[in-house]
Amino acid sequence: MADITESAEDRLIARYFRPLAAHPGALGLIDDAAVLAPPPGCDLVLTTDGVIAGVHFFPDDPPETVGRKALRMNLSDLAAKGARPVGFLMSVALAKENDETWLAAFTAGLAEDVRDYQCPLMGGDTDHTPGLTSVSIAAFGVVPHGTMVLRSTAKVGDRVAVTGTIGDAALGLKLHRDPALGERWRLSSALQAHLRQRYLLPQPRNALAAAVRNEASAAMDVSDGLAGDLAKLCRASAVAAEIDVARVPLSDAARAALAAEPELIEPVLTGGDDYEIVIALSADKLARLREAAGAVGVAVTEIGRVQAGEGVRFIQNGKSLAFTRPSFSHF
Amino acid sequence: MADITESAEDRLIARYFRPLAAHPGALGLIDDAAVLAPPPGCDLVLTTDGVIAGVHFFPDDPPETVGRKALRMNLSDLAAKGARPVGFLMSVALAKENDETWLAAFTAGLAEDVRDYQCPLMGGDTDHTPGLTSVSIAAFGVVPHGTMVLRSTAKVGDRVAVTGTIGDAALGLKLHRDPALGERWRLSSALQAHLRQRYLLPQPRNALAAAVRNEASAAMDVSDGLAGDLAKLCRASAVAAEIDVARVPLSDAARAALAAEPELIEPVLTGGDDYEIVIALSADKLARLREAAGAVGVAVTEIGRVQAGEGVRFIQNGKSLAFTRPSFSHF
Repeated sequence: MADITESAEDRLIARYFRPLAAHPGALGLIDDAAVLAPPPGCDLVLTTDGVIAGVHFFPDDPPETVGRKALRMNLSDLAAKGARPVGFLMSVALAKENDETWLAAFTAGLAEDVRDYQCPLMGGDTDHTPGLTSVSIAAFGVVPHGTMVLRSTAKVGDRVAVTGTIGDAALGLKLHRDPALGERWRLSSALQAHLRQRYLLPQPRNALAAAVRNEASAAMDVSDGLAGDLAKLCRASAVAAEIDVARVPLSDAARAALAAEPELIEPVLTGGDDYEIVIALSADKLARLREAAGAVGVAVTEIGRVQAGEGVRFIQNGKSLAFTRPSFSHF
Repeated sequence: MADITESAEDRLIARYFRPLAAHPGALGLIDDAAVLAPPPGCDLVLTTDGVIAGVHFFPDDPPETVGRKALRMNLSDLAAKGARPVGFLMSVALAKENDETWLAAFTAGLAEDVRDYQCPLMGGDTDHTPGLTSVSIAAFGVVPHGTMVLRSTAKVGDRVAVTGTIGDAALGLKLHRDPALGERWRLSSALQAHLRQRYLLPQPRNALAAAVRNEASAAMDVSDGLAGDLAKLCRASAVAAEIDVARVPLSDAARAALAAEPELIEPVLTGGDDYEIVIALSADKLARLREAAGAVGVAVTEIGRVQAGEGVRFIQNGKSLAFTRPSFSHF
């Protein structure tokens, strides 16, 4: 009799989602809810982000990357706040064209990240939709009580630093939309692949979370473009910043594209999907952060200073850049 | 300079979502993440559920009800687990036809529930979509450590009880789809309105959460039909149940419809969206639960027994009912 009442959703959950849900509090995904006993003395850090087909990913992207991208967008927020991931809830709306084969690949990709970032699925909700496939994730992390890194606590005199390289994903998105740009930018196929991969699959800096928590005055993840996101951080902190554009860290691919087309500096600085961390911190703490970052193989580059006032100036060749579209938004 | 970099999304967040986010840990929705210090000695209870236009609600439903429905689906899970709500994260994907007027009404409705259920918005994510409007919510509750009510702990000999009335929303959905049924079922307009309202806006039983936590052996919320959900509870607990159909609590409207068309007993018992709680508990605890429920004006009705074995039998006039579609699924 048991099988008669087992729905199609139950079967899919058991087959594809349960393997992601090893956390004992997920109860094998057979209950209404999960239970989580937060470590004593810790705060929970809560964030939510998601992807919609045709908005945040291309319908023909490999399904293995779609769930990973959605999860990594959230992991990047946790990293910027100094939090260790503990788990996530996920709502999936599946369009008709995304069949069980698609779902199998989607969850197989996600399984790698669940393992690599030690961030298990705690619960979910799966529906078919006559609309577009979308994945919405709510992720949870922990920090010692009172230590979550905020946007609002940058101090005048702080250095501004960023992790990794900036602008790759924005250029990768342009390349995806118009492959002819690869030739115009005189990029080898390896450099083109680098940019496209950076768009396809973010590399959140969770390995740096503890160091960010220990050293940063303020931080946030760079998801809507360095210019717009740093402006948000400055606004929240009631400070200004001046950035030396020549110091903004670029990949070999972005550097080559900029050499061919210098006006690409605008999408590099304002385009979205970097999933790096921008950090305000004192000079001595920057040295310690760079040491910690070196130990895990992540670059941390000083790019400017926090100042009194408001707004962010990007200085190139002695002049302040003016952007036509300062902040990226999917909205 | 600040305003130049403020995006359309920032403006909508400030205007419509920030008023829902009074919790200090929501940081006014200006950070990447929220921070929550769980009460000492408590476990967090985590659940996620959502609605998609045309699947879980009608595109022409009043926008005031759409967010409330999504939130209440989650609140119902928390109630069934014995948890007190503490907050929620929300992802909204807005179709083109749902403009700022729609969003204003959507958030105004939600504001009432945020206040009534003391469940503030902790963070969110808002996008436009070329697809269908959808709302995905992840909700958090708390219980004293180790006291979350499970599905898997029903005991042979327990009574089976349900809150409120069963089947109204399933009949309300039928009426919404085919208004001519109102006459066929010989329902006054008031009784028709009752059924439709029960579909439109669930009444989760959060007022009973503490009593459920104190008294239940096992419980779950009834969202996919009493028959299918009780079968899930029995399967998780490795027990069977026998239900006396005559004792299943019905509203006046459902009773009238059944008098006109007795075969409606199947959608009443198997249809979705009840958002009541089905509870397994000992006879003495049932008496205490009913007392607590009476104090908050919620009916709790004994409908059957937990037995050894497997499966759920619904007995009517001495015979076991056979359903053509035992469990409701939006999937």
